[in-house]
Amino acid sequence: MQILKDRIVRDGRVAPGGVLKVDSFLNHQIDIELYNEIGKEFKRIFSDIPVTKILTIEASGIGIACIAAQYFKVPVIFAKKAKTKNIDGSVFTSKVESFTHGKTYDIMVSAKFISPDDKILIIDDFLANGKAVLGLLDIVKSAGAEATGVGIVIEKGFQEGGKMIRELGINLHSLAIINEMDDEGNITFGN
Amino acid sequence: MQILKDRIVRDGRVAPGGVLKVDSFLNHQIDIELYNEIGKEFKRIFSDIPVTKILTIEASGIGIACIAAQYFKVPVIFAKKAKTKNIDGSVFTSKVESFTHGKTYDIMVSAKFISPDDKILIIDDFLANGKAVLGLLDIVKSAGAEATGVGIVIEKGFQEGGKMIRELGINLHSLAIINEMDDEGNITFGN
Repeated sequence: MQILKDRIVRDGRVAPGGVLKVDSFLNHQIDIELYNEIGKEFKRIFSDIPVTKILTIEASGIGIACIAAQYFKVPVIFAKKAKTKNIDGSVFTSKVESFTHGKTYDIMVSAKFISPDDKILIIDDFLANGKAVLGLLDIVKSAGAEATGVGIVIEKGFQEGGKMIRELGINLHSLAIINEMDDEGNITFGN
Repeated sequence: MQILKDRIVRDGRVAPGGVLKVDSFLNHQIDIELYNEIGKEFKRIFSDIPVTKILTIEASGIGIACIAAQYFKVPVIFAKKAKTKNIDGSVFTSKVESFTHGKTYDIMVSAKFISPDDKILIIDDFLANGKAVLGLLDIVKSAGAEATGVGIVIEKGFQEGGKMIRELGINLHSLAIINEMDDEGNITFGN
């Protein structure tokens, strides 16, 4: 997706430790026009697959999933990262090891929101080690539903997540795949 | 906002401890058509005030803020709840005591995203004890900007937050104000 790649080059920043900072337009401050283009692009890519619900994970996936859901005309579910008073009853859970936060946490979705009939499109902002997507796929499987697609905004192609998930036979599409980035801020895309 | 109140009566559920569960349409599973109506209603209510950015707080405020931002044509900023690798440099911070989670946490916004010229509309899903909104107001003040409005989806009118924030002279509007709810699931609205 060219306008996304152009934006990453223009406003992204490479921080030490392999962190790509896109917080001025994607995951802290949000450019809603760009989000809309991202939503339309996901709809174009996944126009031929059945989607009954979009599944994402808090926090930075939620806005992208909501904007995209307008084009798919389906509800969004966001997996929660910690047990709160607001989830009770039966839940599907999985464990996720975060690249950004450097710790493992539980994610959960209330069981009543995914049924075996559901065709789930998973959407998230980043794919790095793949653990968040694997956790969401695990939840979809626990529900007996089918993950018909995975849509990612930025994939770090130099980490193993994308390869791992494609090898599972999952219909994964990333709008920008970064193959290389260095401390001078040079970014090479793989798509 | 009648369709919101009707939906709360139809699909909301009162759980022990004064928790209103609206997780089937508002803050776990999301009805995007309802979100769109909420976004339009915020635009109608705040059509006469200057808004350069919408500020919310992760996680459940993000989707509502993004959908609303389409009508205001401004960026969204979401305050983050914990220090991650993805925020560095100068930040505005405040402390928030959560009603739902029963603990105090830090919220922060990267200083580069709010300038003294900004006219900020704060949007969130719930207003109960008001601590999240007070924290966001504190951040706006730290930036030298102006909070021109606060838009809330559901206000618990039987808690002190709404009164406290209105007494500060803040332009607060809540789409549904719940004055009473009981364990039998009866809900009385104040607007």
